[in-house]
Amino acid sequence: MSRALDQLIAALQRLPGVGVKSASRMAYHLLQHDPQGARHLADALVQAVDQVRHCQRCHTFTQDEICDTCADPARDDGLLCVVETPADQAALERTGVYRGRYFVLMGKLSPLSGVGPSDIGLEKLLHRLQGDAGAVVREVVLATSFTAEGEATAHVIAQLLKSRGVKVTRLARGVPVGSELEYVDLGTIAHAYADRR
Amino acid sequence: MSRALDQLIAALQRLPGVGVKSASRMAYHLLQHDPQGARHLADALVQAVDQVRHCQRCHTFTQDEICDTCADPARDDGLLCVVETPADQAALERTGVYRGRYFVLMGKLSPLSGVGPSDIGLEKLLHRLQGDAGAVVREVVLATSFTAEGEATAHVIAQLLKSRGVKVTRLARGVPVGSELEYVDLGTIAHAYADRR
Ligand SMILES: [Zn+2]
Ligand SMILES: [Zn+2]
Repeated sequence: MSRALDQLIAALQRLPGVGVKSASRMAYHLLQHDPQGARHLADALVQAVDQVRHCQRCHTFTQDEICDTCADPARDDGLLCVVETPADQAALERTGVYRGRYFVLMGKLSPLSGVGPSDIGLEKLLHRLQGDAGAVVREVVLATSFTAEGEATAHVIAQLLKSRGVKVTRLARGVPVGSELEYVDLGTIAHAYADRR
Repeated sequence: MSRALDQLIAALQRLPGVGVKSASRMAYHLLQHDPQGARHLADALVQAVDQVRHCQRCHTFTQDEICDTCADPARDDGLLCVVETPADQAALERTGVYRGRYFVLMGKLSPLSGVGPSDIGLEKLLHRLQGDAGAVVREVVLATSFTAEGEATAHVIAQLLKSRGVKVTRLARGVPVGSELEYVDLGTIAHAYADRR
């Protein structure tokens, strides 16, 4: 029907969870009702890809060398919480019970999908715990998802850290098994934090 | 966490069916795993908005004055099929049973959403049937959706055209091919009975 339209529909299908039908609906909507939104999205995509990088300390997305959370002087350097994604970190932050630092894996171990230890920054995590900053870390709290892959990831990290004499805890199983942290209610997350083992 | 990332998440929510959670997942995915896909999508959005316009004859999306279907000399000018969207047109094309022309409403009447006759190009449709080209149209086939809004749209168009002496038909309602009667809704069965041939 139109090369540019076909190409837009194809490009939209690179978004996770978007098949050819949703991509078509999105393209028709933008062209018919929101060309300004389409231009705005194009700008936002380029800006984000150009400007967003990983925090040198915790690995999350930021536009600076060090993210706001890592730069915050009011946080407890003795606590380090390991999460899978920025969304998981945001969920934990919203509970208000945790005031330590974070390490964001930006993924989880998944042998079947070819995601290994180097893909989730485990060397960076070890390096951090071994350097000067690492000397003050009293406890690493593992807050990966309670899915098979999240548990396996927590297990691997726990083994690595315990063999280096670091105290490791895990969020309590108050979090419903099989769910992803991002979608869990705040009270459950708060209790799970209090009952961490 | 990052202005550019927040703005990308906001911009993605202008896509139909995308809320804040899916938008976040999409943004994280693009930044973490597919920055090339993000740039590609940005280009495709700008290209489509710049290049895609409406066919002067049938109203669908095209990059030319007249779309390929309208320009095809092998099609029957005596048949004009009215559909809601390019996706509906594509579905009918895939059946291979129809070789006439199209008029694409690019929407349907929806008083509650403020979509009136001028928003779905009805003047353009009437104009087309009154001009030189219109002289040869033997039959207009209404192929709008069998939803309340699609039926209302078909009804309004049928009234307009019949008052001008144009022969108007509607796709038959009935039991979908391949389905067992037991699982078909009663309204469909009732219509299939009434329209039996
Ligand atoms: Zn950081
Ligand atoms: Zn056309």
